[in-house]
Amino acid sequence: MPPGDSSLIRIRLEIAYDGQAFSGWARQPARRTVQQALEDALGLVLRLPEPPVLTVAGRTDAGVHARGQVAHCDLPNECWQASRDTVRRRLARVLPPDVRVSHAGPAPAGFDARFSALWRRYAYRVCDDPAEADPRLRHITLWYPRKLNLANMNEAASALQGEHDFAAFCRRRAGASTVRTLQRFQWARAEPALAVATVVADAFCHNMVRALAGALLRVGDGSRPTDWPRQVLAARARDSGVPVLPPHGLCLEEVGYPPNGQLAARALTTRRRRTALVTPPAGGRSPCGWSGSG
Amino acid sequence: MPPGDSSLIRIRLEIAYDGQAFSGWARQPARRTVQQALEDALGLVLRLPEPPVLTVAGRTDAGVHARGQVAHCDLPNECWQASRDTVRRRLARVLPPDVRVSHAGPAPAGFDARFSALWRRYAYRVCDDPAEADPRLRHITLWYPRKLNLANMNEAASALQGEHDFAAFCRRRAGASTVRTLQRFQWARAEPALAVATVVADAFCHNMVRALAGALLRVGDGSRPTDWPRQVLAARARDSGVPVLPPHGLCLEEVGYPPNGQLAARALTTRRRRTALVTPPAGGRSPCGWSGSG
Repeated sequence: MPPGDSSLIRIRLEIAYDGQAFSGWARQPARRTVQQALEDALGLVLRLPEPPVLTVAGRTDAGVHARGQVAHCDLPNECWQASRDTVRRRLARVLPPDVRVSHAGPAPAGFDARFSALWRRYAYRVCDDPAEADPRLRHITLWYPRKLNLANMNEAASALQGEHDFAAFCRRRAGASTVRTLQRFQWARAEPALAVATVVADAFCHNMVRALAGALLRVGDGSRPTDWPRQVLAARARDSGVPVLPPHGLCLEEVGYPPNGQLAARALTTRRRRTALVTPPAGGRSPCGWSGSG
Repeated sequence: MPPGDSSLIRIRLEIAYDGQAFSGWARQPARRTVQQALEDALGLVLRLPEPPVLTVAGRTDAGVHARGQVAHCDLPNECWQASRDTVRRRLARVLPPDVRVSHAGPAPAGFDARFSALWRRYAYRVCDDPAEADPRLRHITLWYPRKLNLANMNEAASALQGEHDFAAFCRRRAGASTVRTLQRFQWARAEPALAVATVVADAFCHNMVRALAGALLRVGDGSRPTDWPRQVLAARARDSGVPVLPPHGLCLEEVGYPPNGQLAARALTTRRRRTALVTPPAGGRSPCGWSGSG
């Protein structure tokens, strides 16, 4: 709850969506976006004069999916109290079937969906034998025509972990830092022909997960040596040999927050760091997200 | 291989499909069907003058999915030998992305995809909390707005197991028996809001799995008592209180066969039993299937 405004209550939402038919999270004129679908549904269900504004943990790109997206909005307390017991069920009826809200309730003190987050976890699904693929899941899986060597990929991935300037794997934004801490980057076979990357970082630059996963596929299929991704990283410049994989294999799985007592302090730290590094964008309701879609 | 025709070889195929955009398995004029898509792709890849005819284990209805479908066809041996090493990979390229062939190879002696089968296993997926649903999987899951009591459902389901006349749960076909052996019918939660029915029988009548699952949802949501499905079964007549669930929650998961040495004997037994019970259909390439889609 913003200090000094006791008539507002901060609500935390847990969200899942199928990204196929959305132009990503962030509102855009004349495009179908997750933010717009959710804000409109909340405005309707809570009978607000205009839709509330959502702040989100991970601003996913067009076509990217989410299972564990987190957002918050500040609502008139009176209006929340009148709807609190029915809002989840009514949202389930009002929302289009490709977006779901599994939880909506008061946020703990100091919570900010974006700035309090400690980490974001993404998964990228690759089927490396298109004859063996599950056709029912083709909209959430990249089909790759060459067999992947996961041992080599994991060796290459582990060399990228830690705090680095990931400029080589990002689409640059003027004035924005590309230093991130890659906490985990691992590949595992979920099924004989299904390789899944788990990628965890404090935050991601634009296209970062899809470029990291793309570089690793080149290692996995043998077309690049195992130490190539580390060399690309060290060069700190976009490398045209790194493919940015298509969005449909990517899913925001989970966002991690500190214990309740540390939410405000974490938000303050992140906000200060980002203010120091990011040139503030020109006005508008959707500031340019440093915690973008990967 | 049919006796006396040494120039043909019988090929066994393992098949998966997303049923959404198909009018079911069986060829129909001017409809997109799985059989047509597969036969056409096989004809193309094997350079046959006309597409081969597939015999299938489970003739699924429009909209029903499959992960473990099995079929066979008889091909000129020469043509098979010329393509055997590339057919799987070339099928993966030629087939539309909603059908996959994970295996294509010579069938063991006596094998008949339809008549040698011992059992078919289907799964029906129901999400009983549409706020909690995974929107990415909504095309393979029924969303049901009421919480299900699985203990009651399993009590009711176990009373239906065994050999019975399932006329109450089938769409009748003149001259066809509705006696089946329901080997297993169980519900389990795969996730907190996801109930999955496992249904195994020697064979299924038309609509049978979807009617059985529909009756059980009425028990699970408390609108019918636990012994109601058993009473419906005993009445041996279609009951308008039994809903036939929509096809998209249903998937043919697996087909079971006896050990190789018993394939021919099993096919003979099944064929004799069916010949005794079923009025033969009029000519045409797709005989009316007793082992239908559930």
